[in-house]
Amino acid sequence: MAGNKAVTYLGPGKVEVDTIDYPSFSMKDGPGVHQANVGRETHHGVILKNVATNICGSDQHMVRGRTTAPEGLVLGHEITGEVVETGRDVEFIKEGDLVSVPFNIACGRCRNCKEGKTGICLNVNPDRPGSAYGYVDMGGWVGGQAEYVMVPYADWNLLKFPDRDQAMEKILDLAMLSDIFPTGFHGCVSAGVGVGSTVYIAGAGPVGLAAAASAQLLGAAVVIVGDLNADRLEQARSFGCETVDVSKGDPKDQIAEILGVPEVDCGVDAVGFEARGHGKEASDEHPATVLNSLMDITAAGGALGIPGLYVTGDPGAADEAARHGSLSIRIGLGWAKSHAFTTGQCPVMRYHRRLMMAILHDRVQIAKAVNATPIPLAEAPRGYQEFDQGAARKYVLDPHGLLANA
Amino acid sequence: MAGNKAVTYLGPGKVEVDTIDYPSFSMKDGPGVHQANVGRETHHGVILKNVATNICGSDQHMVRGRTTAPEGLVLGHEITGEVVETGRDVEFIKEGDLVSVPFNIACGRCRNCKEGKTGICLNVNPDRPGSAYGYVDMGGWVGGQAEYVMVPYADWNLLKFPDRDQAMEKILDLAMLSDIFPTGFHGCVSAGVGVGSTVYIAGAGPVGLAAAASAQLLGAAVVIVGDLNADRLEQARSFGCETVDVSKGDPKDQIAEILGVPEVDCGVDAVGFEARGHGKEASDEHPATVLNSLMDITAAGGALGIPGLYVTGDPGAADEAARHGSLSIRIGLGWAKSHAFTTGQCPVMRYHRRLMMAILHDRVQIAKAVNATPIPLAEAPRGYQEFDQGAARKYVLDPHGLLANA
Amino acid sequence: MAGNKAVTYLGPGKVEVDTIDYPSFSMKDGPGVHQANVGRETHHGVILKNVATNICGSDQHMVRGRTTAPEGLVLGHEITGEVVETGRDVEFIKEGDLVSVPFNIACGRCRNCKEGKTGICLNVNPDRPGSAYGYVDMGGWVGGQAEYVMVPYADWNLLKFPDRDQAMEKILDLAMLSDIFPTGFHGCVSAGVGVGSTVYIAGAGPVGLAAAASAQLLGAAVVIVGDLNADRLEQARSFGCETVDVSKGDPKDQIAEILGVPEVDCGVDAVGFEARGHGKEASDEHPATVLNSLMDITAAGGALGIPGLYVTGDPGAADEAARHGSLSIRIGLGWAKSHAFTTGQCPVMRYHRRLMMAILHDRVQIAKAVNATPIPLAEAPRGYQEFDQGAARKYVLDPHGLLANA
Amino acid sequence: MAGNKAVTYLGPGKVEVDTIDYPSFSMKDGPGVHQANVGRETHHGVILKNVATNICGSDQHMVRGRTTAPEGLVLGHEITGEVVETGRDVEFIKEGDLVSVPFNIACGRCRNCKEGKTGICLNVNPDRPGSAYGYVDMGGWVGGQAEYVMVPYADWNLLKFPDRDQAMEKILDLAMLSDIFPTGFHGCVSAGVGVGSTVYIAGAGPVGLAAAASAQLLGAAVVIVGDLNADRLEQARSFGCETVDVSKGDPKDQIAEILGVPEVDCGVDAVGFEARGHGKEASDEHPATVLNSLMDITAAGGALGIPGLYVTGDPGAADEAARHGSLSIRIGLGWAKSHAFTTGQCPVMRYHRRLMMAILHDRVQIAKAVNATPIPLAEAPRGYQEFDQGAARKYVLDPHGLLANA
Repeated sequence: MAGNKAVTYLGPGKVEVDTIDYPSFSMKDGPGVHQANVGRETHHGVILKNVATNICGSDQHMVRGRTTAPEGLVLGHEITGEVVETGRDVEFIKEGDLVSVPFNIACGRCRNCKEGKTGICLNVNPDRPGSAYGYVDMGGWVGGQAEYVMVPYADWNLLKFPDRDQAMEKILDLAMLSDIFPTGFHGCVSAGVGVGSTVYIAGAGPVGLAAAASAQLLGAAVVIVGDLNADRLEQARSFGCETVDVSKGDPKDQIAEILGVPEVDCGVDAVGFEARGHGKEASDEHPATVLNSLMDITAAGGALGIPGLYVTGDPGAADEAARHGSLSIRIGLGWAKSHAFTTGQCPVMRYHRRLMMAILHDRVQIAKAVNATPIPLAEAPRGYQEFDQGAARKYVLDPHGLLANA
Repeated sequence: MAGNKAVTYLGPGKVEVDTIDYPSFSMKDGPGVHQANVGRETHHGVILKNVATNICGSDQHMVRGRTTAPEGLVLGHEITGEVVETGRDVEFIKEGDLVSVPFNIACGRCRNCKEGKTGICLNVNPDRPGSAYGYVDMGGWVGGQAEYVMVPYADWNLLKFPDRDQAMEKILDLAMLSDIFPTGFHGCVSAGVGVGSTVYIAGAGPVGLAAAASAQLLGAAVVIVGDLNADRLEQARSFGCETVDVSKGDPKDQIAEILGVPEVDCGVDAVGFEARGHGKEASDEHPATVLNSLMDITAAGGALGIPGLYVTGDPGAADEAARHGSLSIRIGLGWAKSHAFTTGQCPVMRYHRRLMMAILHDRVQIAKAVNATPIPLAEAPRGYQEFDQGAARKYVLDPHGLLANA
Repeated sequence: MAGNKAVTYLGPGKVEVDTIDYPSFSMKDGPGVHQANVGRETHHGVILKNVATNICGSDQHMVRGRTTAPEGLVLGHEITGEVVETGRDVEFIKEGDLVSVPFNIACGRCRNCKEGKTGICLNVNPDRPGSAYGYVDMGGWVGGQAEYVMVPYADWNLLKFPDRDQAMEKILDLAMLSDIFPTGFHGCVSAGVGVGSTVYIAGAGPVGLAAAASAQLLGAAVVIVGDLNADRLEQARSFGCETVDVSKGDPKDQIAEILGVPEVDCGVDAVGFEARGHGKEASDEHPATVLNSLMDITAAGGALGIPGLYVTGDPGAADEAARHGSLSIRIGLGWAKSHAFTTGQCPVMRYHRRLMMAILHDRVQIAKAVNATPIPLAEAPRGYQEFDQGAARKYVLDPHGLLANA
Repeated sequence: MAGNKAVTYLGPGKVEVDTIDYPSFSMKDGPGVHQANVGRETHHGVILKNVATNICGSDQHMVRGRTTAPEGLVLGHEITGEVVETGRDVEFIKEGDLVSVPFNIACGRCRNCKEGKTGICLNVNPDRPGSAYGYVDMGGWVGGQAEYVMVPYADWNLLKFPDRDQAMEKILDLAMLSDIFPTGFHGCVSAGVGVGSTVYIAGAGPVGLAAAASAQLLGAAVVIVGDLNADRLEQARSFGCETVDVSKGDPKDQIAEILGVPEVDCGVDAVGFEARGHGKEASDEHPATVLNSLMDITAAGGALGIPGLYVTGDPGAADEAARHGSLSIRIGLGWAKSHAFTTGQCPVMRYHRRLMMAILHDRVQIAKAVNATPIPLAEAPRGYQEFDQGAARKYVLDPHGLLANA
């Protein structure tokens, strides 16, 4: 058990599978580890043998070199696994449990955790509220695109699947519970999606597709997904969404064709700061395009859910303001329409249990919706590359060959 | 009854009291009246003899020439009065009733009204959802800084005071129910203010002070008001608020001195697009300063209530983007802190009855908090001027001399 | 147009189709009309040509003689129709509109209506808050199981279908919007049903089945329906519900077989005061059985939605307390489990638009779920009789032969 | 440190101060300890030196012999103290911290705790969800009317006061955070109390008075407290409540005199199952009187908060049904008025931090409202007796003489 294969960031455009230390219940120094966390003991943690660990669009921000992520950072925050060792202080989670790990690391003891705001836990990241595995500026918790990973505060964080065999039958669906399914769902909930809503989701990447499936599960009457990638739009149509090709002009006109009116009740931004323009401007980056477009598209009184990531610093941005996270936003338009906006990391724990129930009882086919595609851990670099090129797939790394039949 | 004295906008910096037509139950053409509304019949309306009609900060935007308001526009949307005539279709409101008029005109029959979103009624403004009396681009309903005014959809819109004599004793307080008290309250509610909250309110004008009084009424532990006008800050301290002088540097430092921590739970923007800079930049206009500052000041997980007005067009703005209502906003910071933002006109009807109850039962002294100051209708121009110069007062026009003893 | 065929109550067990007056915009004296309403003018109303008007379980309470309904009462509060005449004060609803009528009559001008509580409008029933068409002690509004009916406050009450032809294609589904679909939905919403919930619905009559379809639409993981009528249970299974036969013993055991645990997250009482016992006691009336059973079945922290009717007076009850609406309830059990209970008429307007959207966009097949069965108006007596005998059908009267192809 | 003086129940009407074991991080067998909890290790716990530990009305239920509490049970669940020892697994709470202990014991790891439902934690009571210190059928956690007590899951459960000296100045107020202040507040919140509400609180014991102070803090317009104990009513008037003497007839008439209308918006039951009748029946026990009266008093559309305890078994009840927790409730009346009912233990953690903030910033004087009265631990038997006789006091035991100057 000396080794642990893991996906490592080596600089813009470069990831590879290296061997890192097997996890322990103590945080060690390393790339991206906050000094205040070095030596921190985690007897409340468990060690997981990872069954499925997905590549996320937010990993791509780092790999594209759009962040200050250090070389050597072990990637991965979408983790599903089997408990192989429990720390001294773990009381309810047991060895052998098959579990989903929320990507946000949370202590379960601070004010924010007690209020259900696990995306901004106060005790896990010395820099600021909120943390995640394998992510820049998030405290230095070792990433989970690996064979094994340590999960702290296990009794609090982990969602145990009630039956192991039943879970393995739907493991690709359940693997979406660690991030994108709750994240898409949160986007919809914060956009006010409910029974009978009309919804526009900007972005047909995995989070956008997960938001679309979530909107359907929430009873939305019409779910429209916009993107400029034809394959991803095709994927959206495959499970009953309407689509808007934003490379073909103003979404508003295309929405009017679908609904008879040019506005929707609810808008979801599943793109974030790496947005591109609409129509003729589609080849350039226009970081505020999606937000501004959503204000145009969403009816007065509607709400915008913004699970798409906006960053405080973007060294690779086109202009000085954007480099500091400031964007030119048509706030006057939003104000005139009484819009409400909800931003931030999804607090996964608020949703994962109920979404698990929906999966286990066949109320949603999330793996199919996002086109979950298992590949061996060793092929992670290919997964990153294809995903970056716009493949209409959600890559799920399979470190132990357990997804072969999934 | 042929005449009706009223406050009229005559161009940047100029208002005067003119005689206009006595109201009727049919909309006539005139400055600012939307052509689609000309001839509209309003048998569902009543005519009010105005008892109190206040000057609002949003009137100032027009009078300063920061909008496209036409000359001749009759101003005024904060109206309290006595019913002197009821339209044919009015069933429950009666002649002699003393009533408060929500500044938002609402039909009580559209989807938005049925959902309680009376600030964006679909049937009163041909241009877009939402309307108000005496305001540019709001459909052309004649303003209420006058002796008499017509109020449409009276059974729906009006709040009747239960007892006339009791009401006249608190009439200056009750006069705040038409706009600023609910508007300040809405700002607090949408910022999540509740029992035990710490709150920062940007702006110590009447809406900011009303928000501060609202925060206290909602049980906030600490209410901090920021401004650069010393008189207005003094007014805030007069009823128990803490204050921050934004001309003296970063609000964050001053907040840390008050609370021991540099952040609050809830932020309220009671300034809007005519914001000025902080510290050394206090003499210039920096339209996004307040929003950006509030994201800095408000703790992760907090919410921002934004009753301060942001406009879709600002011909007098300093730069091209701002002229179209686009501001440079640090959305990355808000996202990192999982902030939620609520904008738009306050739906007065959602709050006015409960705030009336609080006034009538002595739970709040709102007139004192905002320093409500009655002046004769004829002196309206002076009121506008002094208010524009930063007087720490809320001017209440007294068209019929009924506030002399208030 | 002098006549108007209508279903009339003639005493316990007796209904017949009589000719009554064609509706007008003034309330006339008659069986069940409150004296204070006689002569009331309703220029805000419209006259509908009824396209579909359903028999409701709550009509049965009257027909079974379990209320003080007077002979001659015109029945019917589930109305869908075409506007054939508009009153003088109606502004937005137009002749030719195809509309759904909420069974609760509401003025759209009182405090409760403004708060969305249209089930307890203060201005339509002189006896107490809340009203309905054709119902005992509800003010005396003439029932709608007729060719024509007058609907007051039409701009407020009516839901217009956006497209007439599209609507006629789904008219049996849309006919459920006047009562049972929103009522079942309200039961689920007030029971806290959401994505991933496990739900037990007591009663497989039309409201219970509508609640079951609602729970599915809300994303429930498992929907279990309990009844002692085998046909109705079969109907529940036809659209994917699990079922419990309460004649075969304690529902808790059967729930445990389905879920693995003997409790659900959410409980809905779709039976009300005419409940029968479980197991061996199934042949007797036990009015508190359903409530007490739901407290047993619903997990700690769960909620009970109670759309099933409980009455203030039940002359036919088995004991004195029940005759006055008092039942022996295991409140101690509910308290120990921190249950919340929501009772009362469903405020239809809160839900009907969004449910219409779900129907029009094929998100739900409510007519199929409740087995909606059109029959000619003339055959209403048969419909009442078969429904009373437990037919697993929702009878929809077809006064003008427009449902022949539905 | 071998001994630990503690209040012990010795049978109906008998309590005395005995010496029990000093607490440890392992549960020992003893009176009332569930066998499944014997030997349970609690390294997540701390040992407190109790600064203030209050006598509660729910203790009285046991002491009056209305429960199956075993002789020898150590009483007390309202605990405020200083941490003198921390268990091995405690990470954030430190020795020397001054803390408030929620009366509900919660693990912070189960589904209910994660949802904020700490009153029905699934992991602390082998019999059913929910637990408390020193209480019958609650798992056997040793009570805190003692010099020292062990508090499990300390990082989760405890509320640390931010500054020790500041806290000691308001210690009698802060001592109310462990139970009655949050419990009264929860009653108000679940009754829908907000700014401008009219509220009726049944019962002027400590919970009722805490509910009254809470209603004021929440901005209620009028707070009316009903009881039949003149001293307690006087206490309610001392901080601005209106009062109703239920021994003098129907509360409805007295409410009408106060408000002008015979109904309130919100009703709170701060009495529970040991209720007595109104008017002439005031000397007998009528366990459903308060609930039935509240349905009569609360307006249609209102809600009832029910913090008053209703039990599943009451061996001392007057009739067989009540002995099993079944009461004759006018559910038909509640249904006709669309009432909602919320029952159960208050989840203290949901409220205690914000109420602490209100205390520390002088927004509420809760100790004065409930007439908090410190007495030495040794005088606990007198406290129990006087409280049972209706003293208008909240007795606070002072095990270490630290409240002498409070």
